[in-house]
Amino acid sequence: MTDTGQSFQPPRGMRDFYPEDMMLREKIFNAWKTAARRYGFEQYDSCVVESLDILKRKGGEEIVRQIYAFQDKSGRDLALRPEMTPTLARMLSARRNALAFPIKWFCIAQCFRYERMTKGRKREHYQWNLDIAGEESVCAEAETLATAACALGLLGIDKTEVAIHVSSRALLSDLLEKLQIDRAHHAAIYLAIDKRGKIPDEEITALLKENGIPDGDAGRIFDLIRIPTLEAAVEYLGGATPSSDRLVELFSTLSRYGIADMVKFDISVVRGLNYYTGIVFEAYDAAQSSRAIFGGGRYDNLLQDIGGEAMTAVGMGFGDVVIADLLAAKSGMAIKSDSRTAIGCMEESQMPAAIATAEFFRQQGKEVDMALRPLKPKAFFARAGNGGFTEAVYIGPDEVAKGILRVKNLLERTERQMPLPSCDR
Amino acid sequence: MTDTGQSFQPPRGMRDFYPEDMMLREKIFNAWKTAARRYGFEQYDSCVVESLDILKRKGGEEIVRQIYAFQDKSGRDLALRPEMTPTLARMLSARRNALAFPIKWFCIAQCFRYERMTKGRKREHYQWNLDIAGEESVCAEAETLATAACALGLLGIDKTEVAIHVSSRALLSDLLEKLQIDRAHHAAIYLAIDKRGKIPDEEITALLKENGIPDGDAGRIFDLIRIPTLEAAVEYLGGATPSSDRLVELFSTLSRYGIADMVKFDISVVRGLNYYTGIVFEAYDAAQSSRAIFGGGRYDNLLQDIGGEAMTAVGMGFGDVVIADLLAAKSGMAIKSDSRTAIGCMEESQMPAAIATAEFFRQQGKEVDMALRPLKPKAFFARAGNGGFTEAVYIGPDEVAKGILRVKNLLERTERQMPLPSCDR
Repeated sequence: MTDTGQSFQPPRGMRDFYPEDMMLREKIFNAWKTAARRYGFEQYDSCVVESLDILKRKGGEEIVRQIYAFQDKSGRDLALRPEMTPTLARMLSARRNALAFPIKWFCIAQCFRYERMTKGRKREHYQWNLDIAGEESVCAEAETLATAACALGLLGIDKTEVAIHVSSRALLSDLLEKLQIDRAHHAAIYLAIDKRGKIPDEEITALLKENGIPDGDAGRIFDLIRIPTLEAAVEYLGGATPSSDRLVELFSTLSRYGIADMVKFDISVVRGLNYYTGIVFEAYDAAQSSRAIFGGGRYDNLLQDIGGEAMTAVGMGFGDVVIADLLAAKSGMAIKSDSRTAIGCMEESQMPAAIATAEFFRQQGKEVDMALRPLKPKAFFARAGNGGFTEAVYIGPDEVAKGILRVKNLLERTERQMPLPSCDR
Repeated sequence: MTDTGQSFQPPRGMRDFYPEDMMLREKIFNAWKTAARRYGFEQYDSCVVESLDILKRKGGEEIVRQIYAFQDKSGRDLALRPEMTPTLARMLSARRNALAFPIKWFCIAQCFRYERMTKGRKREHYQWNLDIAGEESVCAEAETLATAACALGLLGIDKTEVAIHVSSRALLSDLLEKLQIDRAHHAAIYLAIDKRGKIPDEEITALLKENGIPDGDAGRIFDLIRIPTLEAAVEYLGGATPSSDRLVELFSTLSRYGIADMVKFDISVVRGLNYYTGIVFEAYDAAQSSRAIFGGGRYDNLLQDIGGEAMTAVGMGFGDVVIADLLAAKSGMAIKSDSRTAIGCMEESQMPAAIATAEFFRQQGKEVDMALRPLKPKAFFARAGNGGFTEAVYIGPDEVAKGILRVKNLLERTERQMPLPSCDR
């Protein structure tokens, strides 16, 4: 591409959505919205520009180093949010006394991360967030997973195609205590384990060492995350704990929602954000576990961390990039537009008839693309046959003289007649 | 509010959307989308972060001084877009040879301006943009106005409530030439006239003087923009011109769309952006002409200005803030949520029945909020009667024993019975 061409590209890592891209995005957003509403979540939003302070209050993992931060003309420290959860915590804290908890809220939020560009990675993405705040019951986790599964179903993805891996930081914490590893090290261990599969195990060992965890413990931590079943973990602990009981209860509740088959215990799931405290989960394409389709878990301290009162919550994030890749790989993604009608006319003197016909159809709620100038039949039908239209009406002198239109069904290659709507306005 | 409370507010000039705010926003966005699709516009989008270069290439009016600009970690000059049109011009230029023109595209874009805070002004807003590119015919202006009028109708705003003021920069240019005012001054004159009603006339005179326009000419310019009718303008010019003919043709075409009554000639409408070259328009609440509800016009040189090939286009911008105020003033804005069902149970042992019932309704596409833990009847019905629910199902031991549920219609205060869906999963 020439230099001139280059200068028409979006900024590096940012996406343009041409109409065909937008159709896929809308399909995904609509599935998210429909599923969230069916499960009783209410939509909220906030501005993509957030105070840098709020984003930093919650502690120092990688995501904080990747923030797009800047100052406004008054010297305020602002940022493009890397995730929505700190903003949600801010909004809930602001109306702590006015809101009727538990709340179930969802949003579709654009989020930014400045990171090295790799395949499938962008510097911005849209993330569907579900959050339930103020509810202790494991039903909160179950409803969140059922809602995400519902969205997958609406997108035509079968339950057998996705595996939801579930574990619990509380359980892992119990196991680390059993190993007599100091609680102060647990957070660093979670973040290191989360990198498994993304970087070599030696680098994880190095990372653990950097954080003051002795070499010998690193080996024992690797043994822990190879524990294959919840039963084996309970055995390791020497008996059931509240953290293991909660997982058992979740699996039993999920069977009530008909999605127990999608879910499996996987102790290596910990998530990459500091704020999770309880059950955590990540969903993968069952055929090839590369990047997570969605993930989340229970966080108890985030509201407190940003300066509010403590409150338990369960959250999930589901990005648009991985699911779009999955849908594209699945079906070659033949996104059809809804039924659209093309209308055109041969000569200037039929423009009033074309406008009257277009307006008649639009008042019925149809989607109509009317050619804005007279077109030869060949030019009109080339456009109508090309652009995702299901119906076409072409108006010449004959149609106006007889007051009869022919409506062509482009899919079935049939034709029906209708009277020309009145042009007298 | 205490200091702690303050720190939970969004950044200055940015908005949080709590669920009740979001319902109004979604109502507006849905009207915009529905109208655009009925009129054959296809949706596109791009990232809110744009190259500063693209935004600046199009020339130097006020909006450029109000850009939120920043650098990424590689030193790239980026910005939060203040408007969508330069980005559209970039996207069209990038695919100039692949796209089938004319194109009719729409988007709903968040835009940022750093400006002094006044009533109703925010530093960000969402703007619905309609653009038709590559079509000379005045039908492009007519379809754009008809689409905007359709959105107003979908929002329950009657045609008599909104006045669309229409003029033409080409006509004004002809009039200024008649006054022998140098073409080089025209752009500065348009921007000064656009400030009429926002700042006192003396300041406008001062602004004109600053731009090298003699005092005497300022008076004659004020006379021009008092010309009351298109006929009077034509008389002033000593006969019809292509610019006046085009306005006559637009008014005649709009009568075909049934919206001629909404439209009136108003020579003082020029718009505040440099790139308009032809017909321009602004719509106001007919009862109180304060801030424009929507505005736009024809621009011939923008693609060229950002480095592409020239192409004529018509565009419209319609913000979410003024229309939301108008809707709120109109009706006290009783936004109802769609029909939602509340489900709850008395004791833990009825939770499986509650889940089975919730899932049964959801599979029918209903929106269901299920209480995530057992609730006393009083607590359940207090919540169900409060939160915009139309139906409620409360399950106690009796319902489970008999296998019969009572579905209460909360609006009509009626009740129907249905069998308890199977809990065996």
